[in-house]
This record gives sequence, structure tokens and C-alpha cells, in this order.
Amino acid sequence: MGKKKKIKKLKAKVKALKADLAAASSHTHKIAPLAPASFPDLPVIDGVQFAAVEAGVRYKGRLDVMLALCEPGTSIAGVFTRSATRSANVLDCQAKIGSDPNGGAAIIVNSGNSNAFTGRAGDGSVKAICEEVAKVTGVAENRVFTSSTGVIGERLPHDRITSKVGDLKAGLKADALDLAAKAIMTTDTFAKGAMAELSIDGKLVKIAGIAKGSGMIAPDMATMLVYIFTDAEVEQHTLQGMLANLTNQTFNNITVDSDTSTSDTLLLAATGKSGVRVTEKTDPFRDALHDVMLDLAQQVVRDGEGATKFVEVRVTGAASDKDARTHALAIANSPLIKTAVAGEDPNWGRVVMAIGKSGAQADRDQITIRFGDILVAEKGWVAEDYREEDGAAYMKQDELVIAVDLGLGQGEAVVWTCDLTHGYIQINADYRS
Amino acid sequence: MGKKKKIKKLKAKVKALKADLAAASSHTHKIAPLAPASFPDLPVIDGVQFAAVEAGVRYKGRLDVMLALCEPGTSIAGVFTRSATRSANVLDCQAKIGSDPNGGAAIIVNSGNSNAFTGRAGDGSVKAICEEVAKVTGVAENRVFTSSTGVIGERLPHDRITSKVGDLKAGLKADALDLAAKAIMTTDTFAKGAMAELSIDGKLVKIAGIAKGSGMIAPDMATMLVYIFTDAEVEQHTLQGMLANLTNQTFNNITVDSDTSTSDTLLLAATGKSGVRVTEKTDPFRDALHDVMLDLAQQVVRDGEGATKFVEVRVTGAASDKDARTHALAIANSPLIKTAVAGEDPNWGRVVMAIGKSGAQADRDQITIRFGDILVAEKGWVAEDYREEDGAAYMKQDELVIAVDLGLGQGEAVVWTCDLTHGYIQINADYRS
Repeated sequence: MGKKKKIKKLKAKVKALKADLAAASSHTHKIAPLAPASFPDLPVIDGVQFAAVEAGVRYKGRLDVMLALCEPGTSIAGVFTRSATRSANVLDCQAKIGSDPNGGAAIIVNSGNSNAFTGRAGDGSVKAICEEVAKVTGVAENRVFTSSTGVIGERLPHDRITSKVGDLKAGLKADALDLAAKAIMTTDTFAKGAMAELSIDGKLVKIAGIAKGSGMIAPDMATMLVYIFTDAEVEQHTLQGMLANLTNQTFNNITVDSDTSTSDTLLLAATGKSGVRVTEKTDPFRDALHDVMLDLAQQVVRDGEGATKFVEVRVTGAASDKDARTHALAIANSPLIKTAVAGEDPNWGRVVMAIGKSGAQADRDQITIRFGDILVAEKGWVAEDYREEDGAAYMKQDELVIAVDLGLGQGEAVVWTCDLTHGYIQINADYRS
Repeated sequence: MGKKKKIKKLKAKVKALKADLAAASSHTHKIAPLAPASFPDLPVIDGVQFAAVEAGVRYKGRLDVMLALCEPGTSIAGVFTRSATRSANVLDCQAKIGSDPNGGAAIIVNSGNSNAFTGRAGDGSVKAICEEVAKVTGVAENRVFTSSTGVIGERLPHDRITSKVGDLKAGLKADALDLAAKAIMTTDTFAKGAMAELSIDGKLVKIAGIAKGSGMIAPDMATMLVYIFTDAEVEQHTLQGMLANLTNQTFNNITVDSDTSTSDTLLLAATGKSGVRVTEKTDPFRDALHDVMLDLAQQVVRDGEGATKFVEVRVTGAASDKDARTHALAIANSPLIKTAVAGEDPNWGRVVMAIGKSGAQADRDQITIRFGDILVAEKGWVAEDYREEDGAAYMKQDELVIAVDLGLGQGEAVVWTCDLTHGYIQINADYRS
């Protein structure tokens, strides 16, 4: 073989090997393949303004602190991680939910450091930030809500944040929620936003929200944070009930890796400026809020660490809704199912396994399994007409539905998750080093 | 650059890329790096003989069916998967535990097909095999115990097994337990055996066992099966109690990926031929049996799919033993901790996260975390003298201890697990395709 030919051959080999290596390590620092085409055009919410700055908490040259300032009269509802080791910020926010809305409201969030497991110093950092925000903005200190996301166990350099509160206040704008969405990102590969507008009694009501999160959800770089704003007028107690209820239908039904953050926070602010009063019975508002929350929740899954497939797990026919949820989570969290999905393998046997291990009621011979519309298994065995080629072709899609009917009762649940890939291993095995 | 130089450079590049690719896909078809140096020299157990044959159940050219034949009077104890979708074999074995030992006992196991989720046909296969073994060996049919491991959901070609029972009987030998260990392997990278000999009242008592399993534990290729034989004389009820108790200290404390098989089976046969009578109070026997079971259990973890690190999770100071176990399993099953271990990252923040999410009682400020002897975190924060370099150096070892003290009570637990690597993804994402 001539030298020229040899070079050509070697070059081809290098190219092929590079492609293989890229496949084995695809994903990092790229936008997730399941990301929406673009960030939505979020509406201005009357009664709240936003600002974001570069404070250098950990990262340089990027926005890392956001402030939202709400006018007096704004109701604030919140749901939080149930972790026994939750952060100082979460404990402080929980204590402030329900405080007098006439004090106004401020939400300040930093990325780069989670202020979690930082002992008494963590409480001090929260206190220092709240005091400074209260002083500069005039909001009552018991109406200042903080979140921190990023590395765990390192002292939060809160001076870098407090020294920027003046700049944040000076930079407040009604249309800067998109900048806030960028400031709260950590390992996220895209900023997450969602919105809704609806007419109630002939008046326009708006909802706009942002979220961050890309694992479910690591303590050090992938906490889930969500902030939603509306100009509806909703009494705090009503808002809290609605938020808790809708969280059970949205954010509580997503899982990337079964891990739970020490900092998960979801705050919902209702400024009331639209003049439209919303109660428990205002179905259109509740439905619109549900859709915004579901959209954000699913975006978190779409940005799941290493995710290449978006999976909806639907369980019906369970003995109870609780049983259905137990089965759905067992399926969604099973590493063997998640890796099969990554490998585009229609491995329904692993679905049977997950149902069996979940601990909830199941009868082998009553189970029906479908991949999308394809009937895969029934009556305790593979379905008579099922062809492996059909299952394999279906699994090549980016968005999959795994549907299980237990054949026992009326219990139902839906959970959204993603696959488990080399990308997840790479992000999480190599992150701090 | 000259052509010669260019070729040299490209060749170097090819070599480097090949090495990277090998690192990203290391493990398949190789013996696990954590495997013991060699298979142990198992003692002959008086009163039981073994045989293994090539039946071609699924694989060609390898042993895939084993038979153990025990003399009349042998006590059989068993523990089984709690899966709600357990296999026909498991249901049949469970029904036979406690049947009259005067009928003798036979254990027949095939690899290549798990006979799980095969509807009524699965029951028929078990029945056919038991009938044939009873006919050929003279053992009572209600004393024939079967296990099947391999692909799920495909009809077991049981004729291939029944047609070999005559050969199995003809080939029975006292010293063939090592061949049996090979016949039950599926994705295992090494055969697993363990033994103990002890003297009780001046007489020798022997224990020898084999196991298979390399996930915890996929239904299609990595079920855990364990068979242990002893010449001690133990009444069935005593043997059953001892086995259940020791399983809680050994096999129930290992986890590779939190998934549970539909076929897990552990059988313990006591032939009585040593003439040494063992009761609940015979501590030396119980201790020796414990050690054999622990050895086999840890070998399953060492052969965990893709495993490169063996991890002991020790939890002390919990409010109860149950709480300690909940914390230990949350740590051992956390994908974020398992990937950090794979990446040799002393990421103690993820341990805090796992404790927080487990649901068991914890007080952030009372938690102490150690990696080996290194004090990492205490009093709600990183330990004052902890240096990241020390943690990083420790994580480079193959065998790690993650020790957590909750500072709340006397509850204790130990769990053994392995890391989560690219190897796991590759084995499980690419297996059926």
C-alpha cells in the first residue's frame, strides 16, 4: 500500500474512532437533544419586576444571581423538598410562607453554591442576604425568600451577593424573567420557561414561570428550583392549596435518577394586579397553572443528565392510585428499564420485573403491557400477535410511552422520566474532578 | 510535515483513540476486576452428588443444566424472591419446602431461560421437569426443586432438559459441585463457590455452596441463585429459621442496582451424614454458615455488572436498626453516589443527600461521615481537619467503606454494593440487540 493510501486509511480510522468516542461520551456541554426549539416569549406580569447580575459566586463571566421584586399585596405559596437534610434557605422559606403580604415580597436566588450542609454558617448567610434585600428594597424581612443552588458543603460567600443587591434593585425590569431563568442554571443545558394567558370574565390573566434542574436531583449541581408569577388575585391559603395539589400532578411525578435534592423549592407569586379574583372553583385558572407547571416539569426531565429519550409511564387498573404510583415509579426508576430504553431495546421482561419488585399489588396473569399502541404482553405472557420487530422499531423514537394495566381496579398514575446513558455516568462520575 | 511523520502521528492518534474507546467500553466478556483469585477447593459433602451437562437450552457448547441429588433424610430450607411476578419455579419450590425428607431431594437448575412470565406454559414446564427427575432418580416429586435463569418471557424448551436427566443421573459424582457452579452462570464473569469446615464435639462438619448473579438482579440474565450443602444433621424447622435469619445478615444486604429478580432462590440442604446434630444453639455451625453465605453474597457484588469498586456502607447511631438499613440502602442504591465512586470522587455531599431522601430519621447537625478512617463531615458541615486530597487518595482503592453515624440511637446496618459505570450501561443497554 502506498503512503498516500495509508494516510487516507488512517485518517478514515481516526474519523471512525472519533465518532465512536463521541457516541460513548456524547452530551456534555451540548444542549440536550430533547430540548424545546426555543425559549418561550414570556409575558410581562404586572406587579413584579426582575433583575439578574454577575456576582461571581463561583462562576465568572455569567449571570448567577436573580432578584424578583413583587408589590405589596402579593400572595406567595411554596412547596419544598422533604429531605431531612434540607438547606438553611429551604427552612427559612418554609417558615415565611403565610407571612403578611402587605410587606411586599422578594425572591433572590444564586447559582454556584447551594448553601446546603454548611452548618450554622449557612443560617447566617441566609440571614445576611435577607437583611440586605430588606434594607435595599423596603420589603419586610419576613417576606424575603432565598434559594441557593450549586456545590454542597462549601461556605456560601454571601458578601458577593449582598454587595450586588443595590445593582439588582437598580436593574429591575418588568420583562427580564428570561435573564432570571439564565441566572439560576447550573448543569442545565438550556434555560426553562413556560407561560399561559387566559381570559376570565372578559379580563386577561397571565402566568409565567421559570425552572432549573437536570437531575432528580443532585445536591451539588442539579437541584430543582421553580418560580412562577401570575397577576391573578388569589388569597394565600387558596394559592397554597392549589399549588400543593397541582405539584402532585406535575413536579412530584417526574424522576430522573430517584435522587432528591436538599434544596428543591417551588414558589408561586400572585400579584393580584389583573383585578381578576381566583378561588378554588376557578377551573380555567387552575388548568392553565397546571399546564405551565407540567410544561416546566417535563422540561426538567428533557434536560435530565445524559437523557436521549423522554418516557411517559402510564399505569392504570391498579388496586388504588397509590399502588399505581408505586408501580409507575418502580418502572421509571429501574436502572434496567432506563438502560434498555437507552439501548432502544423493547425489553418488556424488565417491566414485569419492576412491577414485581415495587411492593404494590399485582397479579402476573392480569398484567397488560403496551409500548405506545403496541400490545406487548397480556395474560401472564407475551401477546400472541406481538412481533419483536414492531417493539424494536417503536423504541427508536425520542418520545416513548410505556403503559401498564394491572387489571385489578381503578387506580391510575402517570410519571415522566428519561433514559440512563453513558452521558449520565460521565456527568456524574467526572463532575468534581 | 513529511508523509512518514504524518503516518507516525496518525498511528499514535489511532492508538490513543483505541485506548479511550476501550476505557469507555471496558468490561464486557472479561473477568470482573474484583473477582477472587481462584475458585475455592470445595469439600465433598457426604450424602449429595452432582452432575452438569450441555443441554443447549439456549447456549451451545457450554454446561447449562446441573443436578444435585441428596439422600433420603436430607432437610431442605429455602428463601425466595418476594417479587409479585415471581416465576413458576419459585412458586413450586415454595410450596415444597417442608415436605417429607424421607422422599430424598433433588435440585435441578438450568441457565439460558428463566421460565418467568411464561403464563400457564411455565407451570407445565416445571411439572414436566419434576416428573422426569422423580421418575429417573426415584426422588418423590414433591422433593424435586427447580430453578431456571436466563431470558424472560420465552417458552422454556423443557424437552431439552428432560431428555438429559438420564445423562445427569449417570454422571453423578461427589466432587462435581464446581461443574454445577459453572452450569448456572449467565452474565457472571466467574463461577462462585465458598466453603467451611469445622469441628463440633470432635467431629468434622462441612459446608459447601455455589452462587450465580451479577445484577441485583435483572430478570432476564442476572437472577441470583444460591445452593448450599452441609453434612450436618439439622431438623427442617431449625434449618429454615437459621437460613432466614442469616439471609437477613447476608444476601438481603447486597444491592447492585436496586432491581429485584423474579427468580431469586436460595436453597440449603443438610444431609445429616456427619452425624453431628445441630440446633438453634450450635453457634459455631451458625457462624460458619454465615461466613459461607456472606462470602457468596459478596462475590455476587464483586461480579456486579460493570463493577470496578466494592463498597461497604456502614450505618450506626440510627434511631433503630430498620432506620439504619433504610439509610444504608438509600446510600448504596443512589445513582449519584455510585457514579461518584466510579469516578473516584470523594463526594460526601451526595451521602448527605441520600441520608436526607431516605425517609428515615436524621438530624443534619448530628451526622458524622467517614470514608474509611478519614473523618469527612460532622456537626452539619465538612470536618475541620478534612483535606480533599486525603478523600481523593482514599477513593482510588478498589475496596471502600462509607461509614455514617446518625448520632441518634443504637440502630446499625451494613450493606454491600458496587459502583455504577459505563460497563453497566453497556451490558444493559446493549444486551438483547
